[in-house]
Amino acid sequence: MKRLIPVSLFVLMAILLRPAAAADVRYPIHFPDLPGYTTLKCDFHIHTVFSDGQVWPTVRVREAWRQGLDGIAITDHIEYSPHKKDVSRDLNRVHDLAAGLAKQLNLLLIRGGEITKDTPPGHFNTIFVKDMTPLNDPDIVKQARLADEQGGFMFWNHPLIWGGKWTDVHDTLYKNQWLRGVEVCNGPTDTHYLTTFGLGLEKNLTLLGNSDMHVPDLRTRNTADDHRTMTLVFARQRTVEGVHEALLERRTLVWFHNEILGRTEWLAPLFERSIRVSKPTHRAKGKLWIDIENLSEANMVLRRAGNVGPTNLTLPARSVSNVEIRFDPKKPAPTELPYTVTNFLVAPDKGLSVTLNIPAEVESTKREE
Amino acid sequence: MKRLIPVSLFVLMAILLRPAAAADVRYPIHFPDLPGYTTLKCDFHIHTVFSDGQVWPTVRVREAWRQGLDGIAITDHIEYSPHKKDVSRDLNRVHDLAAGLAKQLNLLLIRGGEITKDTPPGHFNTIFVKDMTPLNDPDIVKQARLADEQGGFMFWNHPLIWGGKWTDVHDTLYKNQWLRGVEVCNGPTDTHYLTTFGLGLEKNLTLLGNSDMHVPDLRTRNTADDHRTMTLVFARQRTVEGVHEALLERRTLVWFHNEILGRTEWLAPLFERSIRVSKPTHRAKGKLWIDIENLSEANMVLRRAGNVGPTNLTLPARSVSNVEIRFDPKKPAPTELPYTVTNFLVAPDKGLSVTLNIPAEVESTKREE
Amino acid sequence: MKRLIPVSLFVLMAILLRPAAAADVRYPIHFPDLPGYTTLKCDFHIHTVFSDGQVWPTVRVREAWRQGLDGIAITDHIEYSPHKKDVSRDLNRVHDLAAGLAKQLNLLLIRGGEITKDTPPGHFNTIFVKDMTPLNDPDIVKQARLADEQGGFMFWNHPLIWGGKWTDVHDTLYKNQWLRGVEVCNGPTDTHYLTTFGLGLEKNLTLLGNSDMHVPDLRTRNTADDHRTMTLVFARQRTVEGVHEALLERRTLVWFHNEILGRTEWLAPLFERSIRVSKPTHRAKGKLWIDIENLSEANMVLRRAGNVGPTNLTLPARSVSNVEIRFDPKKPAPTELPYTVTNFLVAPDKGLSVTLNIPAEVESTKREE
Amino acid sequence: MKRLIPVSLFVLMAILLRPAAAADVRYPIHFPDLPGYTTLKCDFHIHTVFSDGQVWPTVRVREAWRQGLDGIAITDHIEYSPHKKDVSRDLNRVHDLAAGLAKQLNLLLIRGGEITKDTPPGHFNTIFVKDMTPLNDPDIVKQARLADEQGGFMFWNHPLIWGGKWTDVHDTLYKNQWLRGVEVCNGPTDTHYLTTFGLGLEKNLTLLGNSDMHVPDLRTRNTADDHRTMTLVFARQRTVEGVHEALLERRTLVWFHNEILGRTEWLAPLFERSIRVSKPTHRAKGKLWIDIENLSEANMVLRRAGNVGPTNLTLPARSVSNVEIRFDPKKPAPTELPYTVTNFLVAPDKGLSVTLNIPAEVESTKREE
Repeated sequence: MKRLIPVSLFVLMAILLRPAAAADVRYPIHFPDLPGYTTLKCDFHIHTVFSDGQVWPTVRVREAWRQGLDGIAITDHIEYSPHKKDVSRDLNRVHDLAAGLAKQLNLLLIRGGEITKDTPPGHFNTIFVKDMTPLNDPDIVKQARLADEQGGFMFWNHPLIWGGKWTDVHDTLYKNQWLRGVEVCNGPTDTHYLTTFGLGLEKNLTLLGNSDMHVPDLRTRNTADDHRTMTLVFARQRTVEGVHEALLERRTLVWFHNEILGRTEWLAPLFERSIRVSKPTHRAKGKLWIDIENLSEANMVLRRAGNVGPTNLTLPARSVSNVEIRFDPKKPAPTELPYTVTNFLVAPDKGLSVTLNIPAEVESTKREE
Repeated sequence: MKRLIPVSLFVLMAILLRPAAAADVRYPIHFPDLPGYTTLKCDFHIHTVFSDGQVWPTVRVREAWRQGLDGIAITDHIEYSPHKKDVSRDLNRVHDLAAGLAKQLNLLLIRGGEITKDTPPGHFNTIFVKDMTPLNDPDIVKQARLADEQGGFMFWNHPLIWGGKWTDVHDTLYKNQWLRGVEVCNGPTDTHYLTTFGLGLEKNLTLLGNSDMHVPDLRTRNTADDHRTMTLVFARQRTVEGVHEALLERRTLVWFHNEILGRTEWLAPLFERSIRVSKPTHRAKGKLWIDIENLSEANMVLRRAGNVGPTNLTLPARSVSNVEIRFDPKKPAPTELPYTVTNFLVAPDKGLSVTLNIPAEVESTKREE
Repeated sequence: MKRLIPVSLFVLMAILLRPAAAADVRYPIHFPDLPGYTTLKCDFHIHTVFSDGQVWPTVRVREAWRQGLDGIAITDHIEYSPHKKDVSRDLNRVHDLAAGLAKQLNLLLIRGGEITKDTPPGHFNTIFVKDMTPLNDPDIVKQARLADEQGGFMFWNHPLIWGGKWTDVHDTLYKNQWLRGVEVCNGPTDTHYLTTFGLGLEKNLTLLGNSDMHVPDLRTRNTADDHRTMTLVFARQRTVEGVHEALLERRTLVWFHNEILGRTEWLAPLFERSIRVSKPTHRAKGKLWIDIENLSEANMVLRRAGNVGPTNLTLPARSVSNVEIRFDPKKPAPTELPYTVTNFLVAPDKGLSVTLNIPAEVESTKREE
Repeated sequence: MKRLIPVSLFVLMAILLRPAAAADVRYPIHFPDLPGYTTLKCDFHIHTVFSDGQVWPTVRVREAWRQGLDGIAITDHIEYSPHKKDVSRDLNRVHDLAAGLAKQLNLLLIRGGEITKDTPPGHFNTIFVKDMTPLNDPDIVKQARLADEQGGFMFWNHPLIWGGKWTDVHDTLYKNQWLRGVEVCNGPTDTHYLTTFGLGLEKNLTLLGNSDMHVPDLRTRNTADDHRTMTLVFARQRTVEGVHEALLERRTLVWFHNEILGRTEWLAPLFERSIRVSKPTHRAKGKLWIDIENLSEANMVLRRAGNVGPTNLTLPARSVSNVEIRFDPKKPAPTELPYTVTNFLVAPDKGLSVTLNIPAEVESTKREE
């Protein structure tokens, strides 16, 4: 029927023009590199069907790549295997099955596993090891030693979930320099990092934040408002060895629920390179306006630490804020604005102190930007 | 330090107030029930790690529940097992592992599997069977017979992907009434349903649309613009038996890329019960306005089939459109608007014919709605 | 060139298939009606270019309709006119210019204005008046009397923004029953409703929440996570008179940043009709599971008030949660779960007390739901 | 009551922690600069309440800034004033009212207006003029001359909406070099640009695309899938004069419904600077994989023009695609992939021809990136 031709044509067009699925697209996570270091986004604690997780190893590679991560360690439980009736117990399989796709996607894949003891002492990841099989042992001290001999980097997982006491065993592992890091933040778990962060600083451990995922991650990308808990690693090069060296040297920060935790040494330059303050866009009596651009993927929540500028200042990720600065018109316009970044924590109860510097306008030439 | 107290308090509050994760929430899919039938949203073709899929069986239950589905069949390949080095080959395990969670979530779980032959004849699902093990056989005619003896419902999967020829084998299965349905639409695959839809109508087969998912589905919900391919089943009751009876009686529609395909018998009442036309909200000379509410989860794209009303009319899912109707002011205002729903297909090249009826205003009483 | 034909065809198709703009679609706000009353969503405090707002009157009608509201009052300042150099000062124009579109869209449009004095006494809206012109007077007592004579309903706007003291003038207006309501919540302003809510309850005033919008509202719809501050009005009929009668009888609730504030008399049935608890979906030893559906547009945040059920329970808007209930297996399964809805406030510091009742399963028949 | 303290505390926290509104944040539009030019995003056709638009002038400044634009011209109708009963008819007011905010936000604001005649000849914008008042004249030839004397740049608006015939009047304006541009795309209007694009190329006019907005724009940002129609201007400097000089020299492209139209001279380098192809991320027999990053805000839809690479290639905005390249393993791996960008149009029916170059791997050193 003639009347129906448009319907048919419409259908044909609709078919031909359907957008391609976006599932296999990678959205980079935007944090600036630091002088001498590339900023890698990593997750060192992830599970699959090979222990108590619910996805095949390649799913972990693809979801990490899609979400803009640079490196992951798949760390199935060594001693815990609820799927053993149905799934192989070869402790090296999970890494081997994921390795091909990781190469194709240029994702750094780090071999590892989770030492899983009752509390105390609890759970520990060891990563960068070469062969998981010999690590299946009832004696954690032996496990730690063997892992270390293979070049493993060991850290204490989610200490507070399982009690969190620092016992003699922890002391032994620590004094032998087998235990080098602590998972300050784990997955979406909310309530304990005030303590673990303090512990990590006190013992001078590498600070880590990981997802501990068991189910598929539904995120297509990581944003300030909805992101995987992860570790920012400041590496000399984007290789597995580069990550390893950075962890040994404690060059990390932790991104957790839109807060960034870590040492001032790394947090201060991360802030500085994430923020651009413009010359005044406009001036009036006792007022000036500036643009503040936040180039990073983290929202920043600032509180005034001096006498000038708005009391509170929220700088959403990847955006520009136009800010009015009021001052005594009888005095010179301010050029430095001291603030505290309340969601950039250098200690459990201490935000990062920063100064926003307003660039001087070039004197002798017309403004052109 | 006193100055830092606010920071610390802020952190504490931020921790306590974090929103709960939404991952385990179910978003219903809104399609109206039809007279005598409840409208069930089903997917009869899904894979897991037990053949070539990439998730554990419980993931399939939880994602279907979360997305508002009523029933699924997990249908791993019978003859194809790329994970056999690592995963059990017991063909009944996948269903058994998913059954507990399905009960908890009140999701209808149907035992099934995919008969996987080279083309021709291709792939066929059989569902509602009781024991998968005996179905592992090189002879498809035998498989079909055995499945039928167990009460299985067999349908031809994605015919065009694998060539699509109707051969003697198909004819044998069909004449024995072992082959009862055809997958008109499969996953996000775009280009072949014009043919399979015609085949299903010609052979009077049950029409099915399924996802054929292998990877995790990242959707948190199904919407008009982004939904899983699925079968709408009009069942006498929300039970596995209810689904079975409905499939045998061909009471289905297929929802695919925001088009709904199927027999007029079911498409017409689905439209009628999805749409509410208001009395005129306002009148002027030669003009009136009506509200048209689309209660369903599908966008509807209408083209005028008569002489009155807008030429094109898009009614987005779950919303109300205010529509201006122009007419010759010397004639009575129109009360019936003939349209074709171009994305509700009753044949490969034919949209559903409908009439929008404008309710009369009550004469003698004030409008109070 | 032959090779380019597909490009051209592609372009043509892309043009023909572009989706219609969604700007003129209405998304209903889902709150249940209460017994004997229809639940209307209203905003009684909005500005346009006719005082210090930034949009034309029809914009206010269309945005309210699009967002699912039932009624609005445009309430430009009577005494404040920063645009007077460019825009007419006829106080009735704003309503008259909006009235035609409001009729077409069946939106209830209420004539009103904002009495704008220095603090004290501050700002007051009067709505349901017939002629704004005589209300332009320096004496607020005279204004209130004249408005009342026209059938006006007067309420105190955002008391705390302008100091918030209850002065002799307020007392005069109140004792004459000219001042009948208080704006407990205003726009996105965050910090003062703990006091105004208490004031409204103490003085037995009608409780209102309004947007006080000056700029265009960018929302396409109202959701739990992002909605306009508004008043829920429980009216006998969906007419301007119906709204008026309900305000006089104080049948209102206030929806503000995903909290609902008001009297238990209305909050309790709103909760009850918004929530559906299923029969147990599954039972195990010492455990049962139920589905809890939240039919409303508000997220609900519950805290356990008894000894059974999860300590915290978040029920996102328009979704179903599957909840595990644990109990002592030696005792009967619980059928009543006492909770406090922490974001449904019946007093500034008091959440609504509710009981979730688990329906009994029908004994003698098979479950069929 | 003790039990209620947590409720109260919860409320207090909820108040203190509410996120700041994002309405006043600017999201940059990411298109690369070209060698010697900065890429400015501009809209030269916008309305306000000062003719038939529905917003105050400052709304236009703020929404353009928020959406990442660099410059706008507010171009209210000169001869058409449906609001004249209520709004001033001073043709310079609209610009003057917007100028202060534009300075504060560093948005380039260009004075202009729309010459509004019946068809033919239709509507024309003139921008960069100094005084609108003398341009209010019934004779379009006189208007064009007067505008030109003021330094105005005149272009023909949406030719096809009003018939589109090139008449003697157009010829007069054109031959005097008063008419210099054509609006190839206007607002969301879909059906006519195949003709206007050809006209613009044939007459060697500056190509423009503008929104012609009358109502508030609800977008918070411009994305590939939902953006304002705009003109990309390649300017020597980010000033009003810079824009003017670029328009005179025809250094523009038009971004319209995720297509970019214009001359190869500008489209080719825009593509080249928007796309980064990585060295192979991995190699296998007869296969290699590359990452293709699209740094721009436009999705790119490519079709293979040679014999190697995927037939269709969609590169979503601001993302990385990992692409598998298959080739005859007996031959050298390909290093150049010819494609047509089907949504980058250099003529109405011709996509941009491009070559994706796969960088060679550095021979003598280990790969480290």
